[in-house]
Amino acid sequence: MMHFTSTASHAHGVTRRDFVHDGVPGAFWTPEGEPTGLVLGAPGGGQHTHAPGVIARAHRCAAAGLAVVTLDAPGHGDRPRTAVDERYITGIRTRTAAGQDAWELIAEYNALLASQAIPEWRSVLDALPFSGSRIGFWGTSMGSAIGIPLVAAEPRVRAAVFGLVGATEGLVLAAARITVPVRFLLQWDDQLVARDAGLALFDAFTTPHKSLHANPGGHGDVPDHESDSAVAFLAR
Amino acid sequence: MMHFTSTASHAHGVTRRDFVHDGVPGAFWTPEGEPTGLVLGAPGGGQHTHAPGVIARAHRCAAAGLAVVTLDAPGHGDRPRTAVDERYITGIRTRTAAGQDAWELIAEYNALLASQAIPEWRSVLDALPFSGSRIGFWGTSMGSAIGIPLVAAEPRVRAAVFGLVGATEGLVLAAARITVPVRFLLQWDDQLVARDAGLALFDAFTTPHKSLHANPGGHGDVPDHESDSAVAFLAR
Repeated sequence: MMHFTSTASHAHGVTRRDFVHDGVPGAFWTPEGEPTGLVLGAPGGGQHTHAPGVIARAHRCAAAGLAVVTLDAPGHGDRPRTAVDERYITGIRTRTAAGQDAWELIAEYNALLASQAIPEWRSVLDALPFSGSRIGFWGTSMGSAIGIPLVAAEPRVRAAVFGLVGATEGLVLAAARITVPVRFLLQWDDQLVARDAGLALFDAFTTPHKSLHANPGGHGDVPDHESDSAVAFLAR
Repeated sequence: MMHFTSTASHAHGVTRRDFVHDGVPGAFWTPEGEPTGLVLGAPGGGQHTHAPGVIARAHRCAAAGLAVVTLDAPGHGDRPRTAVDERYITGIRTRTAAGQDAWELIAEYNALLASQAIPEWRSVLDALPFSGSRIGFWGTSMGSAIGIPLVAAEPRVRAAVFGLVGATEGLVLAAARITVPVRFLLQWDDQLVARDAGLALFDAFTTPHKSLHANPGGHGDVPDHESDSAVAFLAR
């Protein structure tokens, strides 16, 4: 069951309604007027649905007439952390702080989160007050680790923005099952994802409608013009 | 001296004026109304200024308010072929037809053409009836082999679309001197340019304002939406 807990009016006629669905907190953003489509906006690792980047993305989409739903990932945002969550998070932080490669640990943790998050996203999609058929997905980093198997399994999603994530056996298998248009973002100097691993994952998508967009800079440095371009891609 | 030889009116108020400048044939395309910028549109290998792809690109730019100048490369279009041109062209055709790697021969020939074409482009830029300061370059394949050293040497060019070309010692050195925004197009299944060679050349650009756009398909299969996006990039 989806319970809306609060409603807030933002600039430019945008409305945000926070909700809890089967214990999972999320937010539903709507533009002024009837939305022309819906974007499933999955936050990245460590972010929750109220993180500045997640809010900025919702506003960008709303400005293009799109509604957005975001959802806290397991162990993230306002959700409880299990002992397993704590162990992975501590391990990833320790390795990153020491300048060591944390990718394998991140990939393992992401796979664990995805298996739990995928049915949650599908259930939210069933429950949302949105009746249109134009549904897209936008999630990078952990958002892609969840989104790639989600989009592979979910025929209602018709286009997807992924990126900032590298090839793992599970993601390669899921990518090979995706046939909708894909935009894949890669940061050329990503300190968390090896360049070759990102390129290998882009290579794994079966869809003929895929584009790789790579820009200089680290994991968190996706340029604004690339985010604008992603909105335009989803709005098409 | 620039001699205009003919003027033709095209759809949507676009005008094409053919010219010969110091013996080099070219065409100058202008949109309806005052152009907001000028694009140096270098054809790819084997193409001349009247090739369908070159004309389509000029129309795309004109629709965005941009003027375009194209120029036949040495040994191309209406220009005479020397014995050296013939030798390279035959060699490249023979290797390609036999399914052999022609890249080294193409790279060598391109470097030869570039050394002659660069002063020609600079001289045309001096002579053109265009007084604005917003000048961009758009040339892939052989167009990039000429354009990368041209843009490295020519401070009047403020943005460039390159691609479909791989790293050579000369191009890497030129790319390292480019500081203006660059869009780099790569075809994921390019039969003429190895993927790693294209990625290595993108890596070589010094400018922090560079984006790699990669799409599935062969050397000639750049999708329409990518060309539209390149026009929008140049129009900015």
